[in-house]
Amino acid sequence: MDFDAKEILARNGIEHLAAQKGPLQVRTPIDGRVLANLDVATAQHTEMAIQNSVKAFKEWRTVPAPRRGELIRLLGEELRASKAALGELVSLETGKILQEGLGEVQEMIDICDFAVGLSRQLYGLTIASERPNHRMMETWHPMGPCLVVTAFNFPVAVWAWNAALALVCGNSVIWKPSEKTPLSAAAVQQIFERTCARFGTAPAALSQLVQGERERGEQLVRDSRVPLISATGSTRMGREIAKVASERFARTILELGGNNAGIVCPSADLSLVVRAVAFAAMGTAGQRCTTLRRLIVHSSVYDKVVSEVKKVYEQVRIGSPLDSASMIGPLIDKGAYSSMVKALSAAKEDGGRVFGGERVYAELPDAYYVKPAIVEMKKQTDIVCHETFAPILYVLKYDTVEEAIALNNDVPQGLSSSLFTTDMREMELFLSAAGSDCGIANVNIGPSGAEIGGAFGGEKETGGGRESGSDSWKAYMRRATNTINFGKDLPLAQGIEFGV
Amino acid sequence: MDFDAKEILARNGIEHLAAQKGPLQVRTPIDGRVLANLDVATAQHTEMAIQNSVKAFKEWRTVPAPRRGELIRLLGEELRASKAALGELVSLETGKILQEGLGEVQEMIDICDFAVGLSRQLYGLTIASERPNHRMMETWHPMGPCLVVTAFNFPVAVWAWNAALALVCGNSVIWKPSEKTPLSAAAVQQIFERTCARFGTAPAALSQLVQGERERGEQLVRDSRVPLISATGSTRMGREIAKVASERFARTILELGGNNAGIVCPSADLSLVVRAVAFAAMGTAGQRCTTLRRLIVHSSVYDKVVSEVKKVYEQVRIGSPLDSASMIGPLIDKGAYSSMVKALSAAKEDGGRVFGGERVYAELPDAYYVKPAIVEMKKQTDIVCHETFAPILYVLKYDTVEEAIALNNDVPQGLSSSLFTTDMREMELFLSAAGSDCGIANVNIGPSGAEIGGAFGGEKETGGGRESGSDSWKAYMRRATNTINFGKDLPLAQGIEFGV
Amino acid sequence: MDFDAKEILARNGIEHLAAQKGPLQVRTPIDGRVLANLDVATAQHTEMAIQNSVKAFKEWRTVPAPRRGELIRLLGEELRASKAALGELVSLETGKILQEGLGEVQEMIDICDFAVGLSRQLYGLTIASERPNHRMMETWHPMGPCLVVTAFNFPVAVWAWNAALALVCGNSVIWKPSEKTPLSAAAVQQIFERTCARFGTAPAALSQLVQGERERGEQLVRDSRVPLISATGSTRMGREIAKVASERFARTILELGGNNAGIVCPSADLSLVVRAVAFAAMGTAGQRCTTLRRLIVHSSVYDKVVSEVKKVYEQVRIGSPLDSASMIGPLIDKGAYSSMVKALSAAKEDGGRVFGGERVYAELPDAYYVKPAIVEMKKQTDIVCHETFAPILYVLKYDTVEEAIALNNDVPQGLSSSLFTTDMREMELFLSAAGSDCGIANVNIGPSGAEIGGAFGGEKETGGGRESGSDSWKAYMRRATNTINFGKDLPLAQGIEFGV
Amino acid sequence: MDFDAKEILARNGIEHLAAQKGPLQVRTPIDGRVLANLDVATAQHTEMAIQNSVKAFKEWRTVPAPRRGELIRLLGEELRASKAALGELVSLETGKILQEGLGEVQEMIDICDFAVGLSRQLYGLTIASERPNHRMMETWHPMGPCLVVTAFNFPVAVWAWNAALALVCGNSVIWKPSEKTPLSAAAVQQIFERTCARFGTAPAALSQLVQGERERGEQLVRDSRVPLISATGSTRMGREIAKVASERFARTILELGGNNAGIVCPSADLSLVVRAVAFAAMGTAGQRCTTLRRLIVHSSVYDKVVSEVKKVYEQVRIGSPLDSASMIGPLIDKGAYSSMVKALSAAKEDGGRVFGGERVYAELPDAYYVKPAIVEMKKQTDIVCHETFAPILYVLKYDTVEEAIALNNDVPQGLSSSLFTTDMREMELFLSAAGSDCGIANVNIGPSGAEIGGAFGGEKETGGGRESGSDSWKAYMRRATNTINFGKDLPLAQGIEFGV
Repeated sequence: MDFDAKEILARNGIEHLAAQKGPLQVRTPIDGRVLANLDVATAQHTEMAIQNSVKAFKEWRTVPAPRRGELIRLLGEELRASKAALGELVSLETGKILQEGLGEVQEMIDICDFAVGLSRQLYGLTIASERPNHRMMETWHPMGPCLVVTAFNFPVAVWAWNAALALVCGNSVIWKPSEKTPLSAAAVQQIFERTCARFGTAPAALSQLVQGERERGEQLVRDSRVPLISATGSTRMGREIAKVASERFARTILELGGNNAGIVCPSADLSLVVRAVAFAAMGTAGQRCTTLRRLIVHSSVYDKVVSEVKKVYEQVRIGSPLDSASMIGPLIDKGAYSSMVKALSAAKEDGGRVFGGERVYAELPDAYYVKPAIVEMKKQTDIVCHETFAPILYVLKYDTVEEAIALNNDVPQGLSSSLFTTDMREMELFLSAAGSDCGIANVNIGPSGAEIGGAFGGEKETGGGRESGSDSWKAYMRRATNTINFGKDLPLAQGIEFGV
Repeated sequence: MDFDAKEILARNGIEHLAAQKGPLQVRTPIDGRVLANLDVATAQHTEMAIQNSVKAFKEWRTVPAPRRGELIRLLGEELRASKAALGELVSLETGKILQEGLGEVQEMIDICDFAVGLSRQLYGLTIASERPNHRMMETWHPMGPCLVVTAFNFPVAVWAWNAALALVCGNSVIWKPSEKTPLSAAAVQQIFERTCARFGTAPAALSQLVQGERERGEQLVRDSRVPLISATGSTRMGREIAKVASERFARTILELGGNNAGIVCPSADLSLVVRAVAFAAMGTAGQRCTTLRRLIVHSSVYDKVVSEVKKVYEQVRIGSPLDSASMIGPLIDKGAYSSMVKALSAAKEDGGRVFGGERVYAELPDAYYVKPAIVEMKKQTDIVCHETFAPILYVLKYDTVEEAIALNNDVPQGLSSSLFTTDMREMELFLSAAGSDCGIANVNIGPSGAEIGGAFGGEKETGGGRESGSDSWKAYMRRATNTINFGKDLPLAQGIEFGV
Repeated sequence: MDFDAKEILARNGIEHLAAQKGPLQVRTPIDGRVLANLDVATAQHTEMAIQNSVKAFKEWRTVPAPRRGELIRLLGEELRASKAALGELVSLETGKILQEGLGEVQEMIDICDFAVGLSRQLYGLTIASERPNHRMMETWHPMGPCLVVTAFNFPVAVWAWNAALALVCGNSVIWKPSEKTPLSAAAVQQIFERTCARFGTAPAALSQLVQGERERGEQLVRDSRVPLISATGSTRMGREIAKVASERFARTILELGGNNAGIVCPSADLSLVVRAVAFAAMGTAGQRCTTLRRLIVHSSVYDKVVSEVKKVYEQVRIGSPLDSASMIGPLIDKGAYSSMVKALSAAKEDGGRVFGGERVYAELPDAYYVKPAIVEMKKQTDIVCHETFAPILYVLKYDTVEEAIALNNDVPQGLSSSLFTTDMREMELFLSAAGSDCGIANVNIGPSGAEIGGAFGGEKETGGGRESGSDSWKAYMRRATNTINFGKDLPLAQGIEFGV
Repeated sequence: MDFDAKEILARNGIEHLAAQKGPLQVRTPIDGRVLANLDVATAQHTEMAIQNSVKAFKEWRTVPAPRRGELIRLLGEELRASKAALGELVSLETGKILQEGLGEVQEMIDICDFAVGLSRQLYGLTIASERPNHRMMETWHPMGPCLVVTAFNFPVAVWAWNAALALVCGNSVIWKPSEKTPLSAAAVQQIFERTCARFGTAPAALSQLVQGERERGEQLVRDSRVPLISATGSTRMGREIAKVASERFARTILELGGNNAGIVCPSADLSLVVRAVAFAAMGTAGQRCTTLRRLIVHSSVYDKVVSEVKKVYEQVRIGSPLDSASMIGPLIDKGAYSSMVKALSAAKEDGGRVFGGERVYAELPDAYYVKPAIVEMKKQTDIVCHETFAPILYVLKYDTVEEAIALNNDVPQGLSSSLFTTDMREMELFLSAAGSDCGIANVNIGPSGAEIGGAFGGEKETGGGRESGSDSWKAYMRRATNTINFGKDLPLAQGIEFGV
């Protein structure tokens, strides 16, 4: 667990933050040590941020989109240059292993490339009009300041997903990061500002960072000058934001809880299943919204699958995320650990057979390393239907694929899902209207690890938002339907006559 | 004002409803006479409707979409056959003139044609994957029972806009019409059921009608088995629905208030302006959500435009909507009239010069015919920013096109807008990101009277929903992102290595 | 073989054609009897047709597309009303069984529905411009007179595929049908003219029929006033058209020969395979461009598949297509029969084992009924690579799926292909960039029988054209890229400075 | 005219080419001096290139598209680094001014950015199927080796337009550049190879250069292993390629001659017109396919426009393209000059009044500098309808906008066109189905200087091809329509019954 936090901060150019004496204490989950005590934004700072964001928007919206794309291209270049340092900082602050820290930065880079391409598209439609000498078209325009609320587990990628699209679309951005990962946010903000300096003509305050507790987020969510709120986090948080936003008809993009299942069919390639389950269930110590939380296994292969998966669980290396041999790092904090303990105890009460789940490295009182847990359940009880943000994999048995799909769907969340099979009929059923009800449905890969080319997000309590690829960019723009009469007559739609 | 209500009901095959003795009193605004006292749905009826709708959905979603389209094609045929009768009933119940009643039915027919075409599209995407031997695609699936809440002013078209798309997309439908126009709804429901009988294999309860007061709507809005709520009506109502729906993460399509402006530029074709303003401001007695409510006129043509428009206002024929000579029928009810009186009085207090607005046919105590009003305002005061659902046209003066656009945008609503000009620079500015902030922005036609090929709806307090053309159908489906691994390896996205 | 040809003509309203004494002799393949001796168009008629088509186009292109769609909607209605009669006429003239005659008319109806939907779309794009105060868009405009050349085997559907789209897109149409099926064409032309009369305002000569021999087709192909040629038929004919058209830069949509394979994998559902093969190989007496001509079977199931397929071949009822018990009708004419005989003989020389292929009903000297043939081949020799328009199914054996795909691709044609499997890995490989090289690649259905929602056509010697669904309509329009400068500056693309 | 050619070659890393003693003599048009005598490819070299290209394609097509995009991203980076040097080389070899040389490289960079974005799209469609338990989709696959034939006037950008898309789409590329600009091609090929080395895993021979005369091009055009030919150049060349390609059903993307008009309306902003005309007519010494060749001026402003344009023509600086003060460089060679002389003489015979057109710097016997010419014509005679690749601007007068549009369209070519107006009615008419018949129609900018976001190309003798933006990438891929049956039944399309 040896590492030099100062050096990591320095490599990211944020060593000066360690000198602050503000109220926001930042600890690394690696050993619980304090990294910084950061200053936070006041209500007045936040008000200024909104005012400046409105001003930036008014200027930015008239900058041609391909020119806006050039800013994002430069951002991608800067991120490439900073990948190693930023990936390490993410590991330090979140406890995810370095491979995943780097993968997260790669995702930022990928979305920049994608957004640059979009900057010469942002396609609306020209549409056939029913009236002579009339032309119809649909155009897309920027909205205004976009609030981006991010969670601790993807402290930098989620901002990039949102900001790259929002900025290319012509919006300004205000970022309220998790209070658990303000350093990663600060480092990214610095990269963004460096990019703007290089770009030359970006308006001031184009993307701003508002550090602080929940009140700042609430202030921003309430403010009617902020037409768009993209929030990633718990269903509880999302519900509160949705309520406030709906009162003022703000648009929301919600990426909330997941409770993602994998179904293992008789014909599945078992070695592939085991590897997929391992990464999907234990990766990021079970703290991804797309983490595999439920494994639904056909009775004919149940014993074999469970025993193989357990073998992997036994061998997996737990340790400092900065140590390249580690595959699982610590939980984010004590609260996460308590939730896990509670969930395992509830599962036991429901008849579950628990394997693993013990705390390790208990000599570090402020760090919470755990063995990932497998819990064999007889039924999909309440605790299974609940998202516990920890490495617990519930295992259930099924006999028919329809039953397996019903189990998959019978939870309040609707983010991601997987099917493992080589049978195309099972696969097609799972992907059909009668199949998985999730926003993501995969075959022969786990539920986590989406590519940025597809739309990311889910249904039901997951919140319905979509980010990243496909036409997700439309969520950051408003649509205008235009009808232009270039004739001298005034025919009415639907053939109405109004004899003036 | 002479007409035979019974015969109109009979022509629509709903004469039996006149015999009911329920609590829902229906009056025609033409002379205020009672048309029926309808039975209403109880809470239990409504619960059954939901249960049946879920059942219908489970069956309907697996019916191939082109076959679903065939149902809608037949619906279009039935509507064509019923156009004259239904148009007349709409006039009787809403007071809109027959031309508009017929136009509304035509809109139902048009959306059916459009939806039939969609039934062989419902296009998702196949997407390039970053991983070898992986395939990505995006598919669209039906959601479940869709609640359609409609307002009195378009008592049948709005249901058709929603139902035609929702049904082709594979959903079931529950319709809660305005309590002011239950007869039109009943007639349409009958046409729909006749269509299903002809179709042969539609599930029972595919689209149901729930008549009654507000409580029934609330029950439906709260119910978690209803994943989609499409509501047309006031901003007040929309706000309440949005709040309840957001608590349970239901999707909403909101079509709420408008406060639509027309800008008249110096180069505008005045004769065209006058005709466009006449229909847009006085049509449907000012009771369209897209009614022209604010006329913003360049100072150089202000006097001429206002005097020409006044001339038309003086000549317009007010009378029974069933009389083909009438161009303006009655307001829907006393409440509407009171709002108009209040608004005119407030406008006067704000310095407005009122022209017209007097009640006519006062000999009919329960019918509210008014002369459409023009109110010349010095400034865009509070009352101008408020949507009064009556034929009041506020007139404002401007000097620069930027100023006119700012006036256009400076209201809480964001539905529709128009510019009258022959100058392409003004036109393009108005249609650009720095132009109108509305969902609809037209040139040389009024703000009302959309074609069904474009997406219909607006921003800000208008609620953000889109219905009808373009890709509005996506609002009735859920998107699934699929990644399929057909190789034997398990590469992770973003190049992550996880060495199991 | 008893039927009343006159009555069939009468039911289609073309009994008067039987009285003509022109040079174009029409025989029914059912028993070879002469149905009519039709008049044909002269060079001068054809010249007039072109002139009139240009005139019709100039008017039609400015009719709003949704109004053009209304014509096609009415055409669909008329076709629905004429389905039984027209289907029978198609059977009479082509020899295809009544079920297929009716199916062909249904395809006409389906494409009309689809085209009506398109008529409110014909979507171009609005595109982000790199220059301030510039707007870009892409619009689609009609081309002019479209020449549609059709083959005997789909004497009516192919016209409808082309005409429905061409007309909705705003073009005029000139139809040169096969000289073997002029009666079906005449009946359809009459339906079209009836539709125009009902529509009321279509320009004269909007879609015209030019009956006659090859010279008329050549005249039309050469004429520079005809910007678009859509031709269905043999590769030989397509090659000649392509050469002439390319000289004058006319656009072509070519649907030429196919040589379609089906691959049967070890895991395939055999009962499904047998049914699919039966329809795909024997349907239309092997005279579809998408007929299954090559069956490539895995060695592990080869014997079983071949024996099962032979069983079906033995049982299939051959007879008059107008007899509802028949499943195979006659070949179109003596030439078709000779080609079949020659091909079977060549196959034998190449070592093929022939099953079936004998002539039946030889008592009818001018009718050519044959038993469908199965030919087991050791290798894919020249004759197998050649399209013989008759019911010959070559059977080949394979060991690895890569080998099967290579056989599938190793012919000059590239129209359609099928894979039968339940293994998703084989399926995905077949559908991937390394899989089938055809325009159509199906899984678990035969290569024939496309739905109109997808694009239809193929690669290599099949000619590269696409018709019917998806964005095939773009082939009937020209694309315009528009850039509009609404500012007062003149920035150049790519940042070029030119200091005037 | 002083410059150091060796140094320019050295800066591009191709100084070694100056040492070759091959048959391909390269002269700079600046002063006619010989730059190199290059070796050329033999028939056998070319055969090897084809074989290697096929091999490269087979490997490249299975590389995931986003990874292919990474190669193009790196190519963009390398081009950014080489922009100054390559731009200068282009100026040296083509004679276009440095600003335009640099602009051409910028276009290469832009298309790379765009193609990178496409690499995560290449969207096909998922499509609603009419059959239960069936799924339809449309996927796009690479074609094979793409032949890119480029012209002297855009010696590097046209390759990049094609290669960036072709490579991202999964094809291999063979480049046959103009024999007049082999050095620029060689420099670009070197940049490409440097990029591949940096990328690491590109197959050998992914994009190859075949230098030489016409025979090499013919060999490549004839070869059936080359499924796609993208050719930019004269209509004569395009016609020959089209004929050969059509014989073997190869796909062509033809970008041939243009004869582009600008219409000046009474309301046009004259200062903007003059600047636009200057660049569009004189830029690249009139040697762009999009050069403005015909100016059609309303009679009411004719005199003023012509006199203003003449003023600019008089002031424009002619000289060495490497001198930053020059706005017009030399013609490419003697042939170009002769054509210009002939055209001016023909125009005079047709009654044209010629202004300018004289040779300058005649002291350089092998360099052909000319004053740009304005020719006032009474009618649009044959010579005006012919594309002369030189700076000749024909001026015509018109009275009605319909007449102006007819003049615009009444030439055999259909590439680009412009309208100058502030009247939105004229603008919309020009952009409508009854307006310009060209592939590009602009308003208030000249016909040249397209952005890469739109599709580039034109109709009629321009060849019909489209490159660059919008969905032009589809031209580099083949479309596959897939229907997948995952049920146990075999329903046929169009409801056909076939009772096996």
